[in-house]
Order: sequence, then C-alpha cells, then structure tokens
Amino acid sequence: ANSVLSSYSTTVFEVMSRLALEHDAINLGQGFPDEDGPEDLRRVAAEALIAGPNQYPPMMGLPVLRQAVASHDKRFYGLNLDWQTEVMVTSGATEALADCLLGLIEPGDEVIVLEPYYDCYLPLIKRAGGIPKVVRMSPPDWKLPLEELEDAFTQDTKLIMINSPMNPVGKVFSWDELEALAEMCLRYDVFAVCDEVYEHLVFGGQKHYPLLTLPGMRDRTVRIGSAGKSFALTGWKVGYICAAPEVLAPIAKAHQFNTFTTAPHLQKAVAEGLAKDRAYFDGLIKELQGKRDYLSKELAAMGFKVLPCEGTFFVTVDFSGLYRGTDEAFCRHITTEAKVAAVPISVFYEMEGPTQMARFCFSKKMSVLEEAVRRLKGLF
Amino acid sequence: ANSVLSSYSTTVFEVMSRLALEHDAINLGQGFPDEDGPEDLRRVAAEALIAGPNQYPPMMGLPVLRQAVASHDKRFYGLNLDWQTEVMVTSGATEALADCLLGLIEPGDEVIVLEPYYDCYLPLIKRAGGIPKVVRMSPPDWKLPLEELEDAFTQDTKLIMINSPMNPVGKVFSWDELEALAEMCLRYDVFAVCDEVYEHLVFGGQKHYPLLTLPGMRDRTVRIGSAGKSFALTGWKVGYICAAPEVLAPIAKAHQFNTFTTAPHLQKAVAEGLAKDRAYFDGLIKELQGKRDYLSKELAAMGFKVLPCEGTFFVTVDFSGLYRGTDEAFCRHITTEAKVAAVPISVFYEMEGPTQMARFCFSKKMSVLEEAVRRLKGLF
Ligand SMILES: CSCCC(=O)C(=O)O
Ligand SMILES: CSCCC(=O)C(=O)O
Repeated sequence: ANSVLSSYSTTVFEVMSRLALEHDAINLGQGFPDEDGPEDLRRVAAEALIAGPNQYPPMMGLPVLRQAVASHDKRFYGLNLDWQTEVMVTSGATEALADCLLGLIEPGDEVIVLEPYYDCYLPLIKRAGGIPKVVRMSPPDWKLPLEELEDAFTQDTKLIMINSPMNPVGKVFSWDELEALAEMCLRYDVFAVCDEVYEHLVFGGQKHYPLLTLPGMRDRTVRIGSAGKSFALTGWKVGYICAAPEVLAPIAKAHQFNTFTTAPHLQKAVAEGLAKDRAYFDGLIKELQGKRDYLSKELAAMGFKVLPCEGTFFVTVDFSGLYRGTDEAFCRHITTEAKVAAVPISVFYEMEGPTQMARFCFSKKMSVLEEAVRRLKGLF
Repeated sequence: ANSVLSSYSTTVFEVMSRLALEHDAINLGQGFPDEDGPEDLRRVAAEALIAGPNQYPPMMGLPVLRQAVASHDKRFYGLNLDWQTEVMVTSGATEALADCLLGLIEPGDEVIVLEPYYDCYLPLIKRAGGIPKVVRMSPPDWKLPLEELEDAFTQDTKLIMINSPMNPVGKVFSWDELEALAEMCLRYDVFAVCDEVYEHLVFGGQKHYPLLTLPGMRDRTVRIGSAGKSFALTGWKVGYICAAPEVLAPIAKAHQFNTFTTAPHLQKAVAEGLAKDRAYFDGLIKELQGKRDYLSKELAAMGFKVLPCEGTFFVTVDFSGLYRGTDEAFCRHITTEAKVAAVPISVFYEMEGPTQMARFCFSKKMSVLEEAVRRLKGLF
C-alpha cells in the first residue's frame, strides 16, 4: 500500500457522519444542506437523463457548461475567459484539486498551505510528490501572517493553495490580503490554486474576489468552483476549473486519466444554475446568514466563544469554558450525549494546533437548527 | 507542470472524437453505444433526482449499490463478497484505476502491463511512482506469452494489470491463461488489478472468469466493473471495485481524496441495473454479436484482415493490404475521406508496435454500421 495515503485515516467528515447516523444525531458535522437545491435544475437534469444521450461528453466538459462558467465569471467578476481553452469541468472540486496537484507538481516541489486547511490538501500534495510548507493562521480573525508567509517562499516553491471563503473557519480573504498574496506569487514566480467553492456564500455585504482577477495573476492562478455548494446539491459532484491555457493544459492531462469526464445531464443542469442572477444568490445568502446568526447567538448564550464567520456553511466555536477534553472528545461527547454532531478543528492542522475548537454546519433547516440548539442546551 | 503527465498527449479517444465531429464522420473510434441503455434505469435515476436527497452519499458508496454489486457477483461468479468491507463505488472505472494505482503503488514499485494496453494505464502507473514493465502480446490471437511474462516478474513487482475482456483487441483470457497468471501472482506475491468493464460483453458462448475467483487470488486481486459498458450508459461514470478488506482499504484512502463520492441518483439506478438477470445480458450479447459479425464480414469483404474478437465493443483490422501509411494516417484518412472514424492500434503500445492496425467500435445502431460500411466501400 502507498505509505503517504496509508498514513491518513478516514476523512473526518465521513467519520462524523457515520457516528451521527449511528447515534441518530443531528449532523452539523459534514458540510451539506439538508434541503436540496433548485427543483428547476433537478428537472433539467432529469429530463436530460430521459432524452439522452447519456454517453461520454467531451473530456473538457460540455460546451454549454464551459460557456456558462465563462459567462458566470464575466458577470460576477468581470473576467474574460475563453471557454475553449480556459475552462474545464471536473467531477467535483475534490477531483479538481487532485487534477491541479497531480498535473502541476513535480516531485520535490514545495507547496505553501495556509493552516487550518481543508483536509484533502496535504495528502494530495504529498501523494503528488510535493512538499507541503504549512503557514499557520491564528484565531479569532485568522489574518494572513505576512511575515511567516514570506518566510515560507523559497526557490523551490511551485504553488500556494488558497481557500477563500475558507473552510473550516469561515474567513473571507480581504482585498489587501489578496494583494499581498499576489505580490508574493509574482515575486517568487509561484502558481496559486484557489479553492473557491464557497464563492457565493459570503455574508454581511463582504465581497469575494477571485485571486485570478488581481493584476498579474491571470497567468498563474487556478480558480476552482463547484455546483455542490452554490446550488445546495453536494451529491452531484460537478466542479470546474478556470485558468490560463498554459496552466489548464497540464491539469487537463491529469483529468483525462483520472475521471476523464462527468455525467452530461448534470453538466446541462449546472449550466442552467450558473445562469442565475445575483438575486438568486442574494436570497441564498440572506437565508444562510439568518441561520448563521441564529446558531451563533444560541451557542454564545450557552457559553461557547463563537468566532466570527464571514462566509461558508460553518461557524467555529471555542468550547474551553464548557468542556475540558480535546476537540475530538468534545465532538464525540455531543454526538452521543446531545445527539448533535460537529467536526473537531484540530484535524485541519498538520502538527498540534488548537485543541478546544469545533465547527458547526448551519446550512440546515431552521427547525433542525432549533432542535439541535434545544439538545445542546440540555448538555450545556 | 508535471513531467510524466506532460509527456502524454490528449487521449486518442478524445482526439478522434473531436476529428469525427469536425468532419461530420460516423464515430467508430471512441467506445460508446449510440443508443442509451435501459429506460427503466434512467427513470429510476430521474425520479431519485426529483425526490432527493441530492447530497453527499457515503464515501464508499450507497449501501444499496454496494449490496447490488455483491449480489451480482454472487449470482454471476459465485463470489461471496462482504459489501461493507469489500465493495466500493467510484466515479467510473477510470477513477477506480487511478485509486488502485495511487493507493497501492509505492514509488519504485514495478507494475507489469500486458501490451497493447488501455491508454490510461501507463500514465497512471508512472504518475503514481510505479515503473511499468510491459509484456507484449501478439496478433492474431494475443496469447499470453508465458515465458516473457515470467521474465517480467522480479522482487520489486508490486502488481500486474489485467484487462479481460481486453481493450483494444477484444481478447478474452482463457481459464488456462488465468491459472497461469494466478500461479505467478502467488509465487511472486503480487497483486492483480483487473479491469473487467467488459465483463458482460463476451461472445460465442465463451465465458468471462474474474481472476478474483481463482484459487488463492481472493486476497490479492482487485476487480473493477462499470455501469457504462454493461448498461450502455458510458456518460454516467459509475464504477465499482471489489477486493478483500486489506486490499480495498488503501484504495479507499486514495478515493476519499480523489473524488470522495459519486452522485446518489446514479448509484440507485445502477443498483437496479445490476439486479438484472442473465436474460438481459444475453439479449445485449446477442445484439452486439450480430453487429460484430456484420462489421467483420463487411470489412473482410473490402480486403481488410479482420482479427478475431471474443469480447468488448471492438473489432481490430490489419489494413496493410489496402493502405500504405501508418495507422494514425489511416484513421485520419478514413475520417476525412470516407467520413468514418476509427482508432489506431499503435497508441496502445509503449514502444514501436504494429503500425498497420486499427480498431472499429461496433456498438452502434445497425443502420449506422450499414452507412459506415457504404462509406468505407467508396474508399476501398
Ligand atoms: C468531502 S465531504 C466534505 C464536506 C465539506 O466540504 C466539509 O464538511 O468541509
Ligand atoms: C475514456 S473514453 C474511452 C472509451 C473507451 O473505453 C475506448 O474507446 O476504449
């Protein structure tokens, strides 16, 4: 068995979801909504299944979806992408990340990762032969630590991974931070792989800026998006990659041997979704923001220290005032005793990090959040 | 960019499909049927899309599909698989292959590959850090070359890739050949990764035996299947892996960070498909066999030397009596001049191999095959 991958256990999302199921707990662990996204998209997909063809679409994706991505990125970010050379469809953002790392990294290349990081980054980097250089960000505001970041860049740095809005901690990178990142990428001649699956889930009037739009970054930035989070259809596993032709080409080489392509009926439906206007996403944001506010307030009332959340599905708490054990123990404790599951934050760290924080997913029906709060109140 | 992947060009299937489209040619290149599989399966999928949930299914796949795989393999092969530890769902057989190679190979491991091989094997092996050891098989019967094979095994051999029924050449491994393979795998303590996506497409009463069923092979064999070929729904990209728990575990480690999971509505539909009885597959075989016979006879009548085809969607011809150029030139020639696309056989070789053979896909409507024959007759 491969030693890099074998050194990792089953992903925490799967572990906590299984535990939640076992204990009939409300699952605020793994990040997915409990209500499916737009029925019109699901109808488009269903009709395409019946009408067909259900055969291999082109390796880069259906033209209709690639065009929809380009036009979405034009409307929302003012980007002018050529759909034929700068857009590729993938089987979810996870595949997109795997393709980027397998396609861009040469064994020995260094890859900068901001910590806490989404859990697949490190195993994928290492399996691709890269050497992760982890730069830690600190609560409660998770500001970009410019000095430590600068120190992490070397002659051997191939790329940096940016996740904004940032899972697990809900940070949205500011324009200033993105400018600093861009400046370093340019100075050290480094690629940026930007996981932007929560691009549409940004609260309080804050704005998501793709790093790809910053001056000088057009030729060295990969932007990854996903239908799962934007349209509350996480099971569809349809993602996309935007990058300059010379950057996308080696990534497509990985993709063509990794999954080759993605189901055409889902591609057609996601194309419809990406055509939705700002009002659609504003509605989504408003609803989610209400849920974030409700859950944050209630958790604070119980005595949790609730960290700010600017985007994503997640709110992070410091539970140290209420529970003495580790975060893994805390998450097991509330799953078995209160029947509410969460995700420990320490799993998003390479070495020992904070051990008294947990992440709650608030993209659930209000009634479900209310019941979760009732249950937690019985314990705290 | 990664040097291994960059050294490969765009997969031939994509290249020939694009060329076919460009020239409005009948596409007998890439292997896919031009009629979608069972409407009942497509309805199940469509209904599940509407009913939901369309959220992340478990990382290993939906229980209903994993159980259906186990029960399919019991009915067809007498295998007793424990669906909870020995079956995993993947986003197509290509992802399954990537997971196996990334999960099992440690850099420096040797991997034996029988040539001609399906085109993703070598890039995937090399990208995973493996060293391919290619053993050539020879036309017209592509018998397993026992001596050369034995010579390829060393102390460092980690695994051997077996593709039966074999793409591109339509060979089905005989029981004797599988016994010889099993004996060597056992003697050299080697894993076998068996790509069996054409398991149900075997002609003339011949039988497909999974290597997994051979004595001693239960703990060292990976069996890969796919809905795409069995149910004429190649666009769905739903595959599955069967292997002993200790073999499947490291493969699942690769899968969880590669695509994580596969759309649940498609998993439900494929579960229905796998429950179909032998009569369904017999019908499929009968129809395909008629098409194979028709196309083989007509190509032979034109002066092609048609090689035997025991399984798959493909018939291979030696065109040396009719055309002097290379196989790539031949395929371009018939695509542009006769408006019929095929795939050159030399792309399935590592070093120089046969250069005057081409592969035609016969899983098309009879009317389409007839038109293709008419067009080719205009040229030859
Ligand atoms: C691979 S399941 C992960 C879902 C998710 O993005 C999360 O919970 O952070
Ligand atoms: C990845 S597209 C390949 C289709 C196929 O299996 C073939 O044509 O051999």
